[in-house]
Amino acid sequence: MSINKKRLKSYNHLTIDQYLRSTWLAIQKMYNEEASKFNSTMVMGFTLLSIDPKGGTPSTSLGPKMGVEPTSLSRTLKKLEERGLIVRKPNPEDGRSVLIVLTKEGLEMRDVSKEVVLKFYDALDERISRSDLKVFYQVLDTINSIATDKEIFINNKEIVK
Amino acid sequence: MSINKKRLKSYNHLTIDQYLRSTWLAIQKMYNEEASKFNSTMVMGFTLLSIDPKGGTPSTSLGPKMGVEPTSLSRTLKKLEERGLIVRKPNPEDGRSVLIVLTKEGLEMRDVSKEVVLKFYDALDERISRSDLKVFYQVLDTINSIATDKEIFINNKEIVK
Repeated sequence: MSINKKRLKSYNHLTIDQYLRSTWLAIQKMYNEEASKFNSTMVMGFTLLSIDPKGGTPSTSLGPKMGVEPTSLSRTLKKLEERGLIVRKPNPEDGRSVLIVLTKEGLEMRDVSKEVVLKFYDALDERISRSDLKVFYQVLDTINSIATDKEIFINNKEIVK
Repeated sequence: MSINKKRLKSYNHLTIDQYLRSTWLAIQKMYNEEASKFNSTMVMGFTLLSIDPKGGTPSTSLGPKMGVEPTSLSRTLKKLEERGLIVRKPNPEDGRSVLIVLTKEGLEMRDVSKEVVLKFYDALDERISRSDLKVFYQVLDTINSIATDKEIFINNKEIVK
């Protein structure tokens, strides 16, 4: 195996995966700080944004939509319910599932979350060119496909004596 | 406020922050799957890699180096100690601090972790050009600086009635 670690190793003393992680943590921190001004959290805001403001969203489709685990989602929904931001209603189209619907307060809070997110996107839009963004997405795509491609590790167990 | 959400909104149905998050989660999943083959975790491997294989590393400098909270670090160190991968020794240069030192098994496990990480970096190196990587890092830099710049949210509280 030829190892070329120089190129990827020397950016701000962080490797590419560590730099991705720290950038995501910085975004998470920013969102949580903004959310805390409204006694909320990033996850709560993100959940509100994932609920259809008009007709509500079936609880079963929220988790997959958001990419979160059912237990973590149900904790968040409980908090939102306690805050009076959502209510659970029977789903007219499917008797076995529950519809998560925003209350008036929930709709207002959803708008606040949207504003925060859009301010961030606006700032990104102003400072990242379209062509750089395209390259950025392509690199994320490549990282994603390598990370989900098990082939690179197929013989991994053999390296242990 | 002018809102231009079109450009950032339409990549694989994910916004830029969600795409960053899902890429980081894919990397995390990959590392954890590889680590599980050795009855380990990504965090354990990452911790082993952060310990100087020669002289060990003071416990107090490990957390900041890795960007993790002290409580989470001490949980990991406890696990590594129970597995016999590290030992705690008095720091000859600072009586109040403890040196985390790798055992023979810890050194072997560190090599395994290193191999996994380098295989990933090798695959990235093969498929991402130097110029694209440069752009990628610049965009991450911009995202980071916007996320840590509180200015974009200064009037945020005013938008709530």
